[in-house]
Amino acid sequence: MAEYESPLWLCPYCGFKDSLWNTYYWKCPRCGKPLRVIYEKDFNPSGRGIARYSSMLPFTPTKTRGEGSTPLVVERINGSILLFKLEYLNPSGSFKDRGTALSIYYGFKIGYLETVEDTSGNTGISVALYSKLYGLKPIVIMPKTAPKGKKALVRALGAELVETPDRSTAATEVHRLIKDRYYVAHTWSYFYIIGASTIAFEVYEEAGIPDYVIVPIGSGGLVLGLIHGFLELVRLKVASKIPRLIGVQGYSACPVYQALRGSIVSKKSSHYADGIMVLNPPRLNEIVDVMKKYGYEIVLVDNEEILDALYELYNMGFIVEPTSAAVWVAYKRIKDKVKGSTILLPLTGSGLKTLIEREPPAGYSPI
Amino acid sequence: MAEYESPLWLCPYCGFKDSLWNTYYWKCPRCGKPLRVIYEKDFNPSGRGIARYSSMLPFTPTKTRGEGSTPLVVERINGSILLFKLEYLNPSGSFKDRGTALSIYYGFKIGYLETVEDTSGNTGISVALYSKLYGLKPIVIMPKTAPKGKKALVRALGAELVETPDRSTAATEVHRLIKDRYYVAHTWSYFYIIGASTIAFEVYEEAGIPDYVIVPIGSGGLVLGLIHGFLELVRLKVASKIPRLIGVQGYSACPVYQALRGSIVSKKSSHYADGIMVLNPPRLNEIVDVMKKYGYEIVLVDNEEILDALYELYNMGFIVEPTSAAVWVAYKRIKDKVKGSTILLPLTGSGLKTLIEREPPAGYSPI
Repeated sequence: MAEYESPLWLCPYCGFKDSLWNTYYWKCPRCGKPLRVIYEKDFNPSGRGIARYSSMLPFTPTKTRGEGSTPLVVERINGSILLFKLEYLNPSGSFKDRGTALSIYYGFKIGYLETVEDTSGNTGISVALYSKLYGLKPIVIMPKTAPKGKKALVRALGAELVETPDRSTAATEVHRLIKDRYYVAHTWSYFYIIGASTIAFEVYEEAGIPDYVIVPIGSGGLVLGLIHGFLELVRLKVASKIPRLIGVQGYSACPVYQALRGSIVSKKSSHYADGIMVLNPPRLNEIVDVMKKYGYEIVLVDNEEILDALYELYNMGFIVEPTSAAVWVAYKRIKDKVKGSTILLPLTGSGLKTLIEREPPAGYSPI
Repeated sequence: MAEYESPLWLCPYCGFKDSLWNTYYWKCPRCGKPLRVIYEKDFNPSGRGIARYSSMLPFTPTKTRGEGSTPLVVERINGSILLFKLEYLNPSGSFKDRGTALSIYYGFKIGYLETVEDTSGNTGISVALYSKLYGLKPIVIMPKTAPKGKKALVRALGAELVETPDRSTAATEVHRLIKDRYYVAHTWSYFYIIGASTIAFEVYEEAGIPDYVIVPIGSGGLVLGLIHGFLELVRLKVASKIPRLIGVQGYSACPVYQALRGSIVSKKSSHYADGIMVLNPPRLNEIVDVMKKYGYEIVLVDNEEILDALYELYNMGFIVEPTSAAVWVAYKRIKDKVKGSTILLPLTGSGLKTLIEREPPAGYSPI
């Protein structure tokens, strides 16, 4: 592994390479595809938070707000062992903080003074928080349909909020603002994949390698990060197996499902799961590859199922947002098939941001 | 210390004693004053969350939602070392989860099927969450003036919400409902003092004993718990000093300040800090005693200062509620007097619950 001494940008499609500390690229400057970051690794955990895995990261941020080291709650249900990973207890209320802590530190070190990001919500909140932490000025572009609480939080964190009619417009609007600013581009960024890989390391240390992981798929940062993390543990001879993937998408935005199973016609909607409403994930090919290799099942969910699952999770003491409840729908769908196994369920985002929108009807009590 | 083999209720005022596992008392059945729980202790940390300190607890709850083991963020500011303890990243968004995890487990073990609590907000949310976790039916009594997000959350967690005109009425209304139900009574309960003592243990293990701790004082559970925890570490010869206390109250409810410094006349209001609006804390005598013995300063804060401090903390990456910002007002007030020292600032509650009420004006950016 001594072929690179310092971290490199690498395009797996056209072979483009450059030193990570030379210039920032949010996509390959030669062929326009998503980049990777390659660097030496060694599994040598020490300390707390994502910095515990410094030896598995390309660099270690100098500042922290407590991202990582989230609780793992173990429950025996229906003959299986469920591992709930409480990612919603990250500092800005979602797992995105792991990747953002890396990305914004990098942007700061490379010399940017302002950051900009298009987001369905959680990443924008996270980017606002870490940008201010390093003294950078954040601009966050969000659909006006995003939950009120998420928009209020972006403003409260001191970011400039730009609202667009929908998520797709946010993704195009951002390009008018990226000149001379650090464009986080989390749906493209390899930093978010590295960030999410630390979830795999924490689960491995606390509970070993699970048999399955149920993972919501939006832009794919979580699924690619988890599988990357588990595969690296195997490559480094720390672990000897990886979990099989159970992917979850919503009916309204299911490009991975469609690539694997063919197109669907359905009147069902899934916009309550706003965090996985990603129609054109830049890393779609990679996600499909990973699901083909390591996938066990891909499950589609709708609004009604999401709300039921949301209040079941609330009643179980997990205060999550609707997007995060999608994994519980998927678990219920496949629970008999995976009976007797150990199943990881990452609970990705906090329900405290969506209280006003998703209050249950009076007397609602599914359990 | 072999005088008691199993945990006991003890009234320090009249000497009443009973086995903890015999009957539940929310106050002394003989003289009506607040009780203590006494039991063998030994500092032998192992594992994660509050269960890490099982050897310092009267019992260990069988269920967890990840309470405790919150991040400690270290910042060097103005020549001092500030230790921010991120208690708002507890499972229901406040430090109350530590005490509630103990209290509700106890109520469940002693045989209750329903719980009831009067609260300004956070304790009710916490009680709802842990009650459902053990299959108990929670009733939560809150002032109708409580933040919308907090009320929505209590309902979403499956509790019955009873709204009263104000916090004092909640405290009297509850007595019509305590028959045959487990009355949590957190402002009286020693379980919340034991719960908060685990914060002291975590800080000690991660950063040693700080010189000062700045602590918001409402019903006193936090200040009594912290000082109890630090004193126990000294008694067990684990540590050899304790921090000095800097207490914080709001102008609108400052019984501890008044007991120490005499009555005040002020037009200033502090109701934004709803979590410390406690006019008659049952443990007032104990709090005043502790402040007389270990207090360095007691600071009063008003709404305007609280809001300024709140958005300063947001800009520093701490998403807290207004009540929690009171400690930052206090720090700024006394920062030159304590220069060069190590200061613990517990950040008690999540700002995600109060987003709608306390959104800053457009363009607000104090830093």
